[in-house]
Amino acid sequence: MATAPTPLLKDELDIVIPTIRNLDFLEMWRPFFQPYHLIIVQDGDPSKTIKVPDGFDYELYNRNDINRVLGPKASCISFKDSACRCFGYMVSKKKYIYTIDDDCFVAKDPSGKDINALEQHIKNLLCPSTPFFFNTLYDPYRDGADFVRGYPFSLREGVPTAVSHGLWLNIPDYDAPTQLVKPLERNTRYVDAIMTIPKGTLFPMCGMNLAFNRELIGPAMYFGLMGDGQPIGRYDDMWAGWCIKVICDHLGLGVKTGLPYIWHSKASNPFVNLKKEYKGIYWQEELIPFFQSVALSKDCTTVQKCYIEISKQVKAKLGKVDDYFNKLADAMVTWIEAWDELNPSGAKSAELPNGATK
Amino acid sequence: MATAPTPLLKDELDIVIPTIRNLDFLEMWRPFFQPYHLIIVQDGDPSKTIKVPDGFDYELYNRNDINRVLGPKASCISFKDSACRCFGYMVSKKKYIYTIDDDCFVAKDPSGKDINALEQHIKNLLCPSTPFFFNTLYDPYRDGADFVRGYPFSLREGVPTAVSHGLWLNIPDYDAPTQLVKPLERNTRYVDAIMTIPKGTLFPMCGMNLAFNRELIGPAMYFGLMGDGQPIGRYDDMWAGWCIKVICDHLGLGVKTGLPYIWHSKASNPFVNLKKEYKGIYWQEELIPFFQSVALSKDCTTVQKCYIEISKQVKAKLGKVDDYFNKLADAMVTWIEAWDELNPSGAKSAELPNGATK
Repeated sequence: MATAPTPLLKDELDIVIPTIRNLDFLEMWRPFFQPYHLIIVQDGDPSKTIKVPDGFDYELYNRNDINRVLGPKASCISFKDSACRCFGYMVSKKKYIYTIDDDCFVAKDPSGKDINALEQHIKNLLCPSTPFFFNTLYDPYRDGADFVRGYPFSLREGVPTAVSHGLWLNIPDYDAPTQLVKPLERNTRYVDAIMTIPKGTLFPMCGMNLAFNRELIGPAMYFGLMGDGQPIGRYDDMWAGWCIKVICDHLGLGVKTGLPYIWHSKASNPFVNLKKEYKGIYWQEELIPFFQSVALSKDCTTVQKCYIEISKQVKAKLGKVDDYFNKLADAMVTWIEAWDELNPSGAKSAELPNGATK
Repeated sequence: MATAPTPLLKDELDIVIPTIRNLDFLEMWRPFFQPYHLIIVQDGDPSKTIKVPDGFDYELYNRNDINRVLGPKASCISFKDSACRCFGYMVSKKKYIYTIDDDCFVAKDPSGKDINALEQHIKNLLCPSTPFFFNTLYDPYRDGADFVRGYPFSLREGVPTAVSHGLWLNIPDYDAPTQLVKPLERNTRYVDAIMTIPKGTLFPMCGMNLAFNRELIGPAMYFGLMGDGQPIGRYDDMWAGWCIKVICDHLGLGVKTGLPYIWHSKASNPFVNLKKEYKGIYWQEELIPFFQSVALSKDCTTVQKCYIEISKQVKAKLGKVDDYFNKLADAMVTWIEAWDELNPSGAKSAELPNGATK
């Protein structure tokens, strides 16, 4: 009998799952997730008991736990919104995080084989990114691919990959208006590609199927103030995505998107979504130009310094769009304070050996 | 019996083929190319007769014809290098160009069906591009796809597509060093995607399987001075790609890459290629930063004006890298003069209705 190979990064990666229900979806992921440690962030009523299938190694935090761990700083963690997941990033002690929604199942590749999404994310994170020039054959580090003619040799070493953004078959990640207009649309196209999002280009980062290197970018993976008591929802991952991209560009880190796919089982209610999103739909028209113009100085040599600088610019430039952004800017600072409290060595180790480049 | 549908843009597109041999490869393309007009640019010995399979509608130009048509300005058209193909772009009177190498055959999609590369290029050119923000589900205008959550609504109209860059199965477009290191590598990965190359990002444009809108970008599709009497080869399409990308970014036009694939049948000799490329391999280390920093003023409202401005900056900044770039800068001006002579109304019509944007 063959011995099963040791799973990649078994002791260096936590899986973070935000949820309000029993985690039956883990049964399907058992062959891939069971060797790893889970951090479950229970949203909503803390008196409810969330059932986790037997055999998984996990820690679970409900709202009472979050309040206990963070004290007054718990105000930066959203309630009644999957944005609460970022608390899991903060309490993890591992180098890598994979986060997945509880309505995401194992997808199949075109040959019918189950896709081990986590394994592909790990491969993405362990191999470099190429943000400074576009490679037309996609990820040059994949088997059977390389840099094409005309790709500068000085750029072929690449840069460390900080984020791996995976995609979704079946229910695509559409906003409420698109959901309403195309209720029957399903994503059936399996695109066999991984690519680096070029430097200077922003993208819509979805938190459904996402992995990142916590040491490289963790303190910027804040999912903002959403849900209960806030005027907006469903922009938690987008906010984080715009922040991390600006910081990765500044620090010379890479963001990959493409494989792996998960199977997104169920569309959320578009009417509920519209209510959560509608302010975001017009705010984002100002947020994109804002993030496109954020300038980080050479002094911003750590993720934390970059993040605090962005919070200042949010207050200065977005505060006039809506007072919400003043609150958000304050929460960004609280988040960093809480992060550094829980990760005392992190602030130091996050300083990159070769400093900031832009 | 069903009537065959009229081929797309039958009277608005020319197929440009540079060659030194009989065009037997057209037999395989007959079902797709026969309705279109071909412009064949014969390279090398003009006394040689190139055979074209029966039934194709074509015009053929050899070196004597180029000299006759352009007079002293023929000096801007390369000899003994496939860069000569750009003469075909200049003499065309059509709105769209497709150019293909004579060692490129019809590829098959994963279902085994022959790929009509030309049809896919036309679809790419007729549908908008999205250079200002990244869409994680690739081309949002394809059937079954759309803009994902977080994509600003103000950007969903897109911009006109100027260039469609297709890819290659079998022999990938590698430089000589990569060919030497990986003689057996074949591209077998069919990536079912089309995407816009983001604004501000340069890419290595390959001329093997390329389509463009001549009215929007034609005057910038100059393939430079290569081959006979020049210190460099195999950078013709790269040069054009860097120029067109900078100009498309300035004028608010889109560049797409991805589908369609062609089957690239034969690797060129890596030793011969190395000799042609070696200067380019170190020059490109200076060319990429140069093109990343080219600034075009608001006065550059036409492709021609942009191109002349780039030629000046080439002379000012690259002339010191090698005297070759002074010659190239002069040839760029000659090219534009020749283009405007052959396309007298073009200079006017190329002015975009809404002016330059950057």
